[in-house]
Amino acid sequence: MPASVDPVTFPDPVYREAVIDLLAAVGYGEVSAFERLAEDARLAPTLEDKVALGLFASAQIGKVEPIRLRLTELGADPFAAMEAFRDGFESFHTHTAPSDWWEGLVKAYVGDGLANDFYREIAAFLDPQTRDLVLTSLEDAGHAEFVVERVRAGIEADPRLAGRLALWGRRLMGEALTEAQRVAADRDALSALLAGGTDMPGLDLAAIGRMFTRLTERHVERMTGLGLEH
Amino acid sequence: MPASVDPVTFPDPVYREAVIDLLAAVGYGEVSAFERLAEDARLAPTLEDKVALGLFASAQIGKVEPIRLRLTELGADPFAAMEAFRDGFESFHTHTAPSDWWEGLVKAYVGDGLANDFYREIAAFLDPQTRDLVLTSLEDAGHAEFVVERVRAGIEADPRLAGRLALWGRRLMGEALTEAQRVAADRDALSALLAGGTDMPGLDLAAIGRMFTRLTERHVERMTGLGLEH
Repeated sequence: MPASVDPVTFPDPVYREAVIDLLAAVGYGEVSAFERLAEDARLAPTLEDKVALGLFASAQIGKVEPIRLRLTELGADPFAAMEAFRDGFESFHTHTAPSDWWEGLVKAYVGDGLANDFYREIAAFLDPQTRDLVLTSLEDAGHAEFVVERVRAGIEADPRLAGRLALWGRRLMGEALTEAQRVAADRDALSALLAGGTDMPGLDLAAIGRMFTRLTERHVERMTGLGLEH
Repeated sequence: MPASVDPVTFPDPVYREAVIDLLAAVGYGEVSAFERLAEDARLAPTLEDKVALGLFASAQIGKVEPIRLRLTELGADPFAAMEAFRDGFESFHTHTAPSDWWEGLVKAYVGDGLANDFYREIAAFLDPQTRDLVLTSLEDAGHAEFVVERVRAGIEADPRLAGRLALWGRRLMGEALTEAQRVAADRDALSALLAGGTDMPGLDLAAIGRMFTRLTERHVERMTGLGLEH
């Protein structure tokens, strides 16, 4: 399917709508990640860590512009399209407000990791130009490495941290899946993209189940990477 | 004086200390500006304005790295040097917490403008390499233009805003001068840089008075640019 799609005026209006939704979700996700990392920066124990988080926040907000441009090319109002995802992201953040520096670090790592895995899964169903834009937006500028290094050192200094952060990681995964399901239920075109359409390949229920299994496995690998029981 | 100074191992230890102080103040100022702009972004009335402020915040935090490198070259612990200016900046921010989007915009504009004018005045007393680094850190990535455009439109939509923001601008100027004097009193090397030393030209009291007159005049010009009585 990708090869047959005209990159700017997709012949299939449902596909076009799905691409707009997907890019808008990625775009709002970048804004939201910026805000969250900037807040986490306030909790940083050292000025060096504060600057590091500020730079990670910068990297996120800097990715909004290519998304905005592409949404405009597709004929969408880019900020209105992104706004549609505000409630989903804000609801997730309200339910998972970190109580300290460590919870903020783990949340950014788990949340970004999960979102990135999900977008990578979806990328397989996209035309090449949209796929490249989505994949470019997933590059993480060293953030994951920073979190792993800091959290492992934190646990070494205070082993009790591990139990609390392991529970926190499980809660984050649960809340993220809840929100993702809610968003998917609201956005027909996005769901259609996953399920396939008249001239598009898609995932049957079993394939969607396998995708969620893969997402969960990668979450477990990330938690293990942090030195946490999943 | 500048031409006779070896850029990395300044022969005059007081000058070296002053340069470290100055760069550290500029560096902490960038971190602080990032934090303030990221907070203001939360108050943005539209997603487009939020992204714009996020990008201005990014531009600020991105300027810390060259300052950090130079402080390291000068043999200073860069983050410890910057930390010395935390209290001054935090005290200013505690005394001037904006109560809404408009006060945040005006504060960023007035504060940055004043800081930039001050650093430009000081630049005349610096060796070329330090001067270039300081001047580069003052480029504003379109932020001033954004604030002027938004505030003028805000006043057009609600003329009562003008009186409140004019008062706010006066208060910001007063608090900034108070903090700047406190910092100068604490940092002997910085004061010595302004006052001149054994082999350095400096400002006598009359010249310092004229500098403050120039800073005030430029503040008034900025307030007028916003459409506000000073």
